[in-house]
Amino acid sequence: MEAFFKLKPPTEVFHIIDGFSAVDQETIPMEDALGRVLNSDLTAPEDLPDFFKSTMDGYAVQTRNTFGATESLPALLEIAGEVSMGEAEKIKVGSGQAVKIPTGGMLPKGADGVVMIEYCSLLDEKTLEISRAISPLENTIQPGDDFRKGAVILPAGKRLRPQDMGVLAGLGFLEVPVFRKPKVAILSTGDEMVPVDQNPGPGQVRDINRYTLGALCRNMGTVPVQMGICEDHFEPLREMVEEALQAADAVWISGGSSVGTRDFTLKVFETLPGFELLVHGISVSPGKPTIIGRSGAKPVIGLPGHPASALVVAEVFMTRMLWTLSGVVDAGDGIHTVKQAILKRNIPSSGGREDYVRVKLENEGEQLTAIPVFGKSGLISTLVEADGLARIHMNTEGLYAGEEIDVMLFSNT
Amino acid sequence: MEAFFKLKPPTEVFHIIDGFSAVDQETIPMEDALGRVLNSDLTAPEDLPDFFKSTMDGYAVQTRNTFGATESLPALLEIAGEVSMGEAEKIKVGSGQAVKIPTGGMLPKGADGVVMIEYCSLLDEKTLEISRAISPLENTIQPGDDFRKGAVILPAGKRLRPQDMGVLAGLGFLEVPVFRKPKVAILSTGDEMVPVDQNPGPGQVRDINRYTLGALCRNMGTVPVQMGICEDHFEPLREMVEEALQAADAVWISGGSSVGTRDFTLKVFETLPGFELLVHGISVSPGKPTIIGRSGAKPVIGLPGHPASALVVAEVFMTRMLWTLSGVVDAGDGIHTVKQAILKRNIPSSGGREDYVRVKLENEGEQLTAIPVFGKSGLISTLVEADGLARIHMNTEGLYAGEEIDVMLFSNT
Repeated sequence: MEAFFKLKPPTEVFHIIDGFSAVDQETIPMEDALGRVLNSDLTAPEDLPDFFKSTMDGYAVQTRNTFGATESLPALLEIAGEVSMGEAEKIKVGSGQAVKIPTGGMLPKGADGVVMIEYCSLLDEKTLEISRAISPLENTIQPGDDFRKGAVILPAGKRLRPQDMGVLAGLGFLEVPVFRKPKVAILSTGDEMVPVDQNPGPGQVRDINRYTLGALCRNMGTVPVQMGICEDHFEPLREMVEEALQAADAVWISGGSSVGTRDFTLKVFETLPGFELLVHGISVSPGKPTIIGRSGAKPVIGLPGHPASALVVAEVFMTRMLWTLSGVVDAGDGIHTVKQAILKRNIPSSGGREDYVRVKLENEGEQLTAIPVFGKSGLISTLVEADGLARIHMNTEGLYAGEEIDVMLFSNT
Repeated sequence: MEAFFKLKPPTEVFHIIDGFSAVDQETIPMEDALGRVLNSDLTAPEDLPDFFKSTMDGYAVQTRNTFGATESLPALLEIAGEVSMGEAEKIKVGSGQAVKIPTGGMLPKGADGVVMIEYCSLLDEKTLEISRAISPLENTIQPGDDFRKGAVILPAGKRLRPQDMGVLAGLGFLEVPVFRKPKVAILSTGDEMVPVDQNPGPGQVRDINRYTLGALCRNMGTVPVQMGICEDHFEPLREMVEEALQAADAVWISGGSSVGTRDFTLKVFETLPGFELLVHGISVSPGKPTIIGRSGAKPVIGLPGHPASALVVAEVFMTRMLWTLSGVVDAGDGIHTVKQAILKRNIPSSGGREDYVRVKLENEGEQLTAIPVFGKSGLISTLVEADGLARIHMNTEGLYAGEEIDVMLFSNT
């Protein structure tokens, strides 16, 4: 079978993945928008802040009245009142006057700066001594300093973080237009598979991929739609894949690691409406037998059956596809944090393919080190032990102990 | 007021935070356990895998029958049958025999290795030619290779990732003992505050902290309990804090940035049962006026009122507290990814305090650079622009352009 694979290099696969389109949009309450992806640019409906305010506890003044003031030659000002929080200013600051103001308070008319309370002392109830000169606008925020009315505050394709939620709140957005959360139908094939709540008989295994792949989808802000286990036969698989395609925005089949089933998966895909085969094998280890196709706009994916291989392929390639479907701009960036570490042992590699090797990170004094987690690629324990993946590029024969290497951390851990 | 602060250095504050205890435990369905923290060590109830299996498509053999086999001098074996996926082996492999086996198939009795299909060719229906010698156990996984019965598979305090879910599934865990998700009561004080759905009048602002702090709690896997806005008066604040303490595992008050309210917050805390003041001011910027106390086991926290300052303090200190309450082992590690970058501009700093300066990361060719986002610390836009924080240690006068600095990325972005 191997000979029939037209293996594609990973860079080409990434490019193909970037060609998928985002799902459609919906409008949701702002409160629920954390982690969601904006569907259109948001602009400020008003200035933020929308009034001239103090950033310090102190006294609002006409700053020119403080020019030249020092400890030995303080300025003396008449106290003309006090600003209350959350109220419109009623007092006016005239020349030679000062008005007490709290942090966040609105500057009274006439004032153009705030003297910090540390540089003020009361001579009597009505007289303030100021020991330091301040510049115009000092210790204040002007209307629009955060965002000016009409400015783009957050661009389409942005995944919302806590601070982004803050801007939405500050500007009174009650609803936001976002991309829907893509739904990913997950199904496992294999006559040896039993559900997790069954005791596997001899030669049988529990369906691990349902949980690892579903968890990865959740971590990426998408919704797994669990289709269950399908026996290794053409017609049942075809029916389940069709159903999956109705129920979701993408279909992931894992399994088919035996020669016969690999054929089924592709043959079933070929019956789907408007199917186009995009990738039939990737020059990567693990993950060579991965299939990527589309039925209309929807990606249909065949992943390896080995749980560890399936999860590595999902981590390297499918995370990017999930963010592309989610509408994230430049979906390849920001999924994986890359850290530099000193490799502790040689990692050999065959040329002609890209290897993703599990590594564990450990601090040795000030130095971050990467220890390869060797072990058969079918073992899930190797992934449990690992913190990330070291990529061995196509045209190298491996990585050497002592080299500084890039480690791609697992997404969202 | 400043003089009354006994400012604590950040390292001491981290140590104090580590002294809080995790919340209690609950048992939840395995399916819901992603991101949850294990409450006790889990051990393997059985071997994983629990049978001797092939990792390749090929032929199961007695490996000694292949010794010396080469392309020019292949070994000839009699084909004795085929292993079906998911079924117990019925066939026995005798000396001089081979049995076809798919990846994941159970090795028939007598066999101790698998020859990859690439090195096999059929001479006739009954005769297999093998062109390569294999070692005992080659291309197989033995029972317990992943985890041996009784071994610790995942330790208490571990936050579950997709691969960890895979191990739970593989071993048939239907339920797992985890720490409850801590609940954090969030309340904002300030007479200038209005809810997000109201138009602020002159001098008023919308309550931003509710959303930024709530989002941060969610990102850390905890549950915000929104108490709303409290006016700046002792008795209403006391009542709301008592209610918050009933409803949650921790209380965060933001606001009180004016001198008067700062007093209220601490005075209200002092009325709580078994209150102990742990931190009254941190030698850090932003975030100096932060208060950390405990009422019994529950942390009660006073955060700055400025949304940007409150979020920086929450990011630096409160994330660690949330993971400590969540039961994560070594909660300080792993929250923030630290990246090295070349600083593009000088950042001045006053000595005697630790500064957390917002920076934006940009690639310049191969080099990651950090650009300080200057702007008044009260502006939330500076955080929207930033990717993380550069820490300026206590006893330095700043960082210089061209230096390699550590950038603490925002959690979970």
